Amino acid sequence: MKPIDFWFSIGSTYSYLTIARLAEVERATGIPFRWQPFSVRSIMIDMDNIPFAKKPVKAAYMWRDLERRASMHGLAANFPVPYPLAEFDLANRVAIVGEAEGWCADYTQATYRRWFRDGQPSGGDPNLPDSLREIGQDPRSVVERANSPEVERAYQAATDEAKQAGVFGSPSFIVQGELFWGDDRLDDAISWHREGRVVAAPE
Amino acid sequence: MKPIDFWFSIGSTYSYLTIARLAEVERATGIPFRWQPFSVRSIMIDMDNIPFAKKPVKAAYMWRDLERRASMHGLAANFPVPYPLAEFDLANRVAIVGEAEGWCADYTQATYRRWFRDGQPSGGDPNLPDSLREIGQDPRSVVERANSPEVERAYQAATDEAKQAGVFGSPSFIVQGELFWGDDRLDDAISWHREGRVVAAPE
Repeated sequence: MKPIDFWFSIGSTYSYLTIARLAEVERATGIPFRWQPFSVRSIMIDMDNIPFAKKPVKAAYMWRDLERRASMHGLAANFPVPYPLAEFDLANRVAIVGEAEGWCADYTQATYRRWFRDGQPSGGDPNLPDSLREIGQDPRSVVERANSPEVERAYQAATDEAKQAGVFGSPSFIVQGELFWGDDRLDDAISWHREGRVVAAPE
Repeated sequence: MKPIDFWFSIGSTYSYLTIARLAEVERATGIPFRWQPFSVRSIMIDMDNIPFAKKPVKAAYMWRDLERRASMHGLAANFPVPYPLAEFDLANRVAIVGEAEGWCADYTQATYRRWFRDGQPSGGDPNLPDSLREIGQDPRSVVERANSPEVERAYQAATDEAKQAGVFGSPSFIVQGELFWGDDRLDDAISWHREGRVVAAPE
């Protein structure tokens, strides 16, 4: 079955809702998702799309909405979580390494759990080394690769590819050229994958 | 049964999805909605919250998403629709008159239908007079009241009340002090009304 392209950045708040349940969604639907880390921050700055910084009312709403929806999905979370991430780029370059080596999803789920459940920022210490050790990776050698020029170029190339595909936020899903943005459009993306249209209640 | 406060501005694109189906939602759920027009434009300018203007990629996505979701709900619409509305404030001051006189919902549904189905901007000619005649109101006398200082003050007061309640976008729903923003949170608002929490699939 053709996969759904799943574009995400570690550091996006709503992406937690997708990342924490995507393995279960794959099992339940039989649809594979292709995890593709990129820098949503770089695209958003390019587009002058800054939804929460300097917008305290909207930011407060976002956290409350996220809390309600995490609870709806039965996801562990302790609000407030540290935000924004100081080590946004490192967290995502590690995901780029993981993408090449086959452990991107496991790492991303592990680091988000520590961020949202334990209040430890992704990309920082102890989240990063603990998440890598949890999935059987050696922190020192992974971080060395994540800081290499090759991985920096791959991160930039992934971001360019996302931008080219019309992606401007995280999480985004691309199904047969059709873009869906936001955890709250995951059902729409699945519906599009199955029927080529959005239906009210996917079976 | 306690109503859900429904805050909206005529001129908001996603609000069409709510406005066109809210009568049916009321019937299906038995929950009354209290229609409350206000100026989301004024609040968004205050907050420097300008999501689509000068953001062409995000705006293009919004229209496509809206088209898919209108189709999902079986709503008539012909895209592109004229946007933004030149007569935004007049369209909403008429809704304020309608709120006082008991025909706010009927007018709002009628004007949105003409805007989204027939491509006639709300607040302009022929949309405004035709919508008013359709619901049995005299356009000339309604517009005269809509342009009165009393209605301007009521519009401003409604906007202040919305802002005070934390509203920053349209459509918004308030249920027992809990704010939900966006047509895609209507189910969450209904769920909160019924159970005091958000559940995955409201009955």
